[in-house]
Amino acid sequence: MSDRPIGVFDSGLGGLTVLKEITKILPNENIIYFGDTARVPYGPRSKETVMKYTFQAINFLMSKNVKAIVIACNTATARSLKEANEKYNIPIIGVIEAGARTAAYSTRNKIVGVIGTEGTVRSKAYNLEIGKLDKDIKIIDKACSLFVPIVEEGWSNTEIASLTAKKYLEELIEEGIDSLVLGCTHYPLLKRTIGEVVGENIKLVNPAKETAKDLKDILEKSNLVKITRNDKSSYEYYVSDIPERFASIAEEFLKKEIQDVKSVEIQKY
Amino acid sequence: MSDRPIGVFDSGLGGLTVLKEITKILPNENIIYFGDTARVPYGPRSKETVMKYTFQAINFLMSKNVKAIVIACNTATARSLKEANEKYNIPIIGVIEAGARTAAYSTRNKIVGVIGTEGTVRSKAYNLEIGKLDKDIKIIDKACSLFVPIVEEGWSNTEIASLTAKKYLEELIEEGIDSLVLGCTHYPLLKRTIGEVVGENIKLVNPAKETAKDLKDILEKSNLVKITRNDKSSYEYYVSDIPERFASIAEEFLKKEIQDVKSVEIQKY
Repeated sequence: MSDRPIGVFDSGLGGLTVLKEITKILPNENIIYFGDTARVPYGPRSKETVMKYTFQAINFLMSKNVKAIVIACNTATARSLKEANEKYNIPIIGVIEAGARTAAYSTRNKIVGVIGTEGTVRSKAYNLEIGKLDKDIKIIDKACSLFVPIVEEGWSNTEIASLTAKKYLEELIEEGIDSLVLGCTHYPLLKRTIGEVVGENIKLVNPAKETAKDLKDILEKSNLVKITRNDKSSYEYYVSDIPERFASIAEEFLKKEIQDVKSVEIQKY
Repeated sequence: MSDRPIGVFDSGLGGLTVLKEITKILPNENIIYFGDTARVPYGPRSKETVMKYTFQAINFLMSKNVKAIVIACNTATARSLKEANEKYNIPIIGVIEAGARTAAYSTRNKIVGVIGTEGTVRSKAYNLEIGKLDKDIKIIDKACSLFVPIVEEGWSNTEIASLTAKKYLEELIEEGIDSLVLGCTHYPLLKRTIGEVVGENIKLVNPAKETAKDLKDILEKSNLVKITRNDKSSYEYYVSDIPERFASIAEEFLKKEIQDVKSVEIQKY
């Protein structure tokens, strides 16, 4: 059982930041990644549609015999994590809870910033989750529409990125936030630039990292951690459509080349 | 007949640049605008889906008794203009032909640049249309993914816009283009910034402007131009979903406030 792979799913390629964090703290595990690149973005779609797409992704990963699944997509987590856990009998975790918990526990002045895509910010998913833990925390949220294309162009550490971060985050700094949730799976790539703009007194919360820690806990508690052997861990990548700039974007996320990306007809699952 | 309104349709709000050009050269006309904001963007969707959406938009505009329709959307033009003209019996024009023609006739060194969204650039729609007119023209195209969010944030005349334009257009300038097609309905708002970056020796081709001229020609030839009277021309705006930042984005495009935007359930048409 513990030799089976872990499944990681995102609407696109952003979830690769979550995969990267998992490989850091669970280096022996085999991982199967699925990016629903043909139907990205999920943000503007209805709850019903997102649930259907999420179940198809889970069905596909289950067909690969995974032992646990990480929904590395903010929209899919917000709209279908609960239903997925009711429907399937393997551990399934999302990216919102761990990030929200870390923010709630790390803030001292109870003013937390949340940045994400317009869809995530409008969904108020982090606000709800943080509010459950501590209703006195004030949340200042902000949609940062330029950040995803900046990351995908490979411009994360340019003057353009820095000026854009200043423009978006000025208001949050003025409001006195002491923690900032990077509420989009693309944003960890902007960590250095954002860190320089907000300064070292504002703690950056990376939900990808916290989610990987949660996954490790769950696997340990369920005796599902892969026993170390001499065989190298394997990573397989599946997408529903191969975007033109797939290789360059994936490299940007993982800082290594991805070989052998396979295509999957996801609507069949 | 000539008193009937003109219909303008786009997947979102970018088509408002086309509406604006029409109001400049046909100031007496009444216009009905429909933006399919619930299903934007069309770029990643199949030809079949885009055709279905386009026909629904046309059916809606026909129900408002329009005398002619402008498909002010590059994707919808590329994937369904021909079929729309076969299906309906009022004049329907798109945004690609007029821009391509102007570029083909204005270039002297036969090196033309085309910029647009990733979807438009990948579709090669401008390349095909320019190639039909003069197969010796060399086309250098480039997807500029940051331009749409920059326009929608209202940052068209900022340092961020200028640095971004430099980064995208450097290569096209080096290749020696003497004409540059602004192949996305959002880009006319970046005209000043792009103009400063490329310099005055490169002619900017604005398909919105050229399409408005084509529309005027067609109305004149068909005796459909509205006869000037004392009544003020009216503009009605319909969208399939009201985006949060609708008012600010629309104002950015039209440089005036839009009042009374109506919602339409487009899937019923």
